[in-house]
Amino acid sequence: MRCEVIAVGTELLLGQIVDTNSSWIGEQLALAGVDSHFQTKVGDNVERIASVLRIALDRSDAVIVCGGLGPTHDDVTREAIAEVMGVGLVRDASVVARIEAMFSARGRRMPDNNLRQADIPEGAAAIDHPQPGTAPGLVCPIAWPGGGEGDEGASGPGGAGERTVDKVVYAVPGVPHEMRAIVEQVIVPDLRRRAGDTSVILSRTLRTWGESESGLAERLAERIRQLDEIGNPTLAFLASGVEGLKVRVTAKGPDEASCKEVLGHEELVLRALLGDLVFGVDDETMEIAVGALLDANRLSLGLAESVTGGLVGARLTAAPGASAWFRGSIVSYASEVKFDLLDVPEGPVVTAEAAEAMAAGARRVLDADVGLSVTGVAGPAAQDGEEPGTVYVGLALGDQVESVRLRLPGDRERVRQFACISALDVLRHRLSGSSRGGHLGERTKA
Amino acid sequence: MRCEVIAVGTELLLGQIVDTNSSWIGEQLALAGVDSHFQTKVGDNVERIASVLRIALDRSDAVIVCGGLGPTHDDVTREAIAEVMGVGLVRDASVVARIEAMFSARGRRMPDNNLRQADIPEGAAAIDHPQPGTAPGLVCPIAWPGGGEGDEGASGPGGAGERTVDKVVYAVPGVPHEMRAIVEQVIVPDLRRRAGDTSVILSRTLRTWGESESGLAERLAERIRQLDEIGNPTLAFLASGVEGLKVRVTAKGPDEASCKEVLGHEELVLRALLGDLVFGVDDETMEIAVGALLDANRLSLGLAESVTGGLVGARLTAAPGASAWFRGSIVSYASEVKFDLLDVPEGPVVTAEAAEAMAAGARRVLDADVGLSVTGVAGPAAQDGEEPGTVYVGLALGDQVESVRLRLPGDRERVRQFACISALDVLRHRLSGSSRGGHLGERTKA
Repeated sequence: MRCEVIAVGTELLLGQIVDTNSSWIGEQLALAGVDSHFQTKVGDNVERIASVLRIALDRSDAVIVCGGLGPTHDDVTREAIAEVMGVGLVRDASVVARIEAMFSARGRRMPDNNLRQADIPEGAAAIDHPQPGTAPGLVCPIAWPGGGEGDEGASGPGGAGERTVDKVVYAVPGVPHEMRAIVEQVIVPDLRRRAGDTSVILSRTLRTWGESESGLAERLAERIRQLDEIGNPTLAFLASGVEGLKVRVTAKGPDEASCKEVLGHEELVLRALLGDLVFGVDDETMEIAVGALLDANRLSLGLAESVTGGLVGARLTAAPGASAWFRGSIVSYASEVKFDLLDVPEGPVVTAEAAEAMAAGARRVLDADVGLSVTGVAGPAAQDGEEPGTVYVGLALGDQVESVRLRLPGDRERVRQFACISALDVLRHRLSGSSRGGHLGERTKA
Repeated sequence: MRCEVIAVGTELLLGQIVDTNSSWIGEQLALAGVDSHFQTKVGDNVERIASVLRIALDRSDAVIVCGGLGPTHDDVTREAIAEVMGVGLVRDASVVARIEAMFSARGRRMPDNNLRQADIPEGAAAIDHPQPGTAPGLVCPIAWPGGGEGDEGASGPGGAGERTVDKVVYAVPGVPHEMRAIVEQVIVPDLRRRAGDTSVILSRTLRTWGESESGLAERLAERIRQLDEIGNPTLAFLASGVEGLKVRVTAKGPDEASCKEVLGHEELVLRALLGDLVFGVDDETMEIAVGALLDANRLSLGLAESVTGGLVGARLTAAPGASAWFRGSIVSYASEVKFDLLDVPEGPVVTAEAAEAMAAGARRVLDADVGLSVTGVAGPAAQDGEEPGTVYVGLALGDQVESVRLRLPGDRERVRQFACISALDVLRHRLSGSSRGGHLGERTKA
C-alpha cells in the first residue's frame, strides 16, 4: 500500500508557514506500515491541485490532501478533487446540519459562504470526525486507469471498458488538531484495512529528562545492538526540545496482546537502563507525572513564579484534575510583589535566598503543603549580576527549605521553558525520593 | 520564470526531520520575483528522484534539488541528475582539490568515499560556494523538450531535431547554513539574470481577532473582487488558531519602495474595512499590542487567573520589557484562594460577580492600576452549573469594575488558550477606547 501526501496552500510555497502536517502524516503512515514515497506542496489553484492529484494517483494507491477545505474563495480542494474524479459537487445535508449546529452552539450566526464546505464531490463521503471543525474531511473512492506506478499517460478516471484500479483520495483540513484527529482515528485504520494488513503495530514512548541524546545512546548502545539482531521491537530517539528526549519502542505482531507483551517487556529492560531519567510514558507529561506524585502523597502545591511568569502554573493546570492538589501560584514579577506578598528580603531577587523565601512564602500565602518557586534571568539583559540562563528553583517541603541553581541554554523563551520543566523535575525527584537534584546545574543547600 | 524545489531525504518522508529548507527557499524565490508553484519531497532513491525531476522540468524552467549530495552510499542526487540529463558522472579535479584541502586543513585524512562528491554530471559545473562544506553545489544546464507546462509525455533531454528549451537544475546540500549561502549568493542571482526580471515581491500581514474566517471574507468580499481585477496586491487569509486570523497582503513591483507604497495604501484600505478587529501587524502579537497600550497610558497591570492557570501572565511576560507595566498575577486555582486572598464572596466562582471581585482583588493585592481576571470552565466537567467553554473576564479600570461573559469552543486546552487571548482582547478594546467587548460572547454589565 502506497499513500502520498499533498499539502495545499500558497502560504506553504511562499514559506510563510512551514508544512509540519505532511511530516506528521508521514510519521503516522510509517508507523502503520504504509509506504509514502512522495510528498507534494501546491498552491491554492484548482488546475495545479488537480495536476498533482493525477500524478499522485498514477504512482500510488491512496492520496491524503491536506488543506484547502475552508469556506473562503481560495479554498478549492473540493473543486480540484471533483475535477479529477470527473464529477460535480453536491450539497451534503448532514454536513450542512453539522455546520449549522456548531455555529448555533457557539451562539454565532453562520455566514452563508460556510455552506461551500457542505458541497462535496459526487460519490465522496464526508468524514464525521471526532473533533469537529467547520471543515469536514472527505473520503473519495476513485476508479483509476492502469496499475499504479509506471503508468505514465494515465490521467483521468476510468472510462467504459478501460482497466481500472480502485484507489482513494482523502481530504483533511489544514488545522493541525483537526487533521490529526481524522488521520489517526479514521484514515490510518481505513488504509490498513484496504491494504489487508492484519498485523498490528503498536509503539510506546518513554519520556526522559536530564540526559543528552548521546548520553542516552551510550546507556542504550548494547541493548540497541541486541535489538538489531532480534529485529522486533525497534527503538528510535525523538528529540523533543523543552519536553526532553523520547525513546520510542515499536513492536509488530499478529495481535494487540502480543505487541503489548513485547512492549511491556522492553519497557522494563529500558527502565532498568535509564532509571529515574524516565518521568513518563506516551502522553504522560512532566506535569501529569508531578501531579500523580502529589496526589499519591496527598500533598497540595503552591507556586511562586517570577521569570516563568505563570508558565509553571499553566502547565500544571493543563491536565484535568489539577484542582485535587494545585492551590495556585503567586506570579511575583515585580520585585515589590516578592517583598510585600511573599516576605522576600529586600535586595537582589536572583539568589538562592530569594528562591527559598519565595517557596516558603508561596506555601504560606496559598496555604499549601509544598512550596515551589522559580526566579532567574531569561534575558536578553543580565540582572543582579547574573547572566541570562541563570535560574534558581526553591522548594519548601516538610521542615526543609532548599534551592537549586541552574544554568539553562537558549534564548529568552527557551530559558523560560527549560526553567519551567526543570523546576517540575526538581519537585519530581524530591517527591519520588530520588537523591538527584536539578539535572542541569549543581545543588546549593541552604 | 518558474522554479520548483525538490527536497531529497527519506527522513523527511518519515517525519523524522521537518523540511524547513523548502519553505526558506520558497520565501527567497518569492522575494526575488520567481514563481514557485510546486515543492516535492522524495526519498533517497535514484529512480524516484529522477522521476520527480522529469515532472518538475516538464512544468517549470528551473529546479533546485536540496539534499542527497553527501559522501555516503544513500546520497544519490548526483546520479539522479545525470540520469535525467542523459550523461555520465565525471570526476571534477577542482572539487577533489578543494575536498582534500579542507580535510588537510582540519588535519584529518580524507576517507576515499568523499571522492564520490567530486563526481559530477558531465556538462554540470560545481558551485564554489562561500561557506564550503564537503558537498559542493551544482549548476546543471539542460536542453529540455517542449515549452514547459502542459507538455505531458516529455521525459528526457532533447534529441536531434527536437524542439528544446534551455532549463537548469541546481543541486544544494541539505545542511541549512550551506544551502542558504549557495541559494542566496549564487542561485537566486543566477535565476534573476536568466529571468531578466527585476521585480520584487513584499508581504505585510494584518493580525485580527474577533471575527470568523468566513465573516472576514464577507467584510472583504468587495475589496477582493476589486483586487482580482487590479491584480496587485493580492490578499490571502491565514487561519492561525488561537492567534486569530491573519490577512496577508502581497505586492509585486519594480523595487522595494513601490511595493511598500502599495502595501501601505492597502493596509489603510483594509483597516478601514476591518476596524479594530486588527490588533497587530506582521510579528506584533496580542500581548505586544496590549503591552504597548499599557505603556502608552502609563498603566500597570495585575492579573487574577483561575481557569487559565497562569497562561495570561506567561504570555504577557514572553516579551522583553514587560516589567515596565506588568506587576504580576494571582493564580487563584483553588476557590479558597479566591475567597481568602482576593476577597471573592464565598459561593459559585464561575459568575460575573466572582470575575469582578477577582479583578478588583488583583488590582488591590498587586498594587496595580488595572485589574484583569479570568474565571470559567475548561472542562471536561461542568462547574457551578456552567458548561465547559463558559468564561467570565473581569476588568477593574478607573472607577469601573465590569465583566464579559464568553462562550468558547474546543477542548480543555483550546478553551484555556481562547480564554487567554480573549481576556487580553477585552483589555485591548477598553484601553483603545473601543466599545466592543469580548468577540465570542455577549457583554453583561455589572
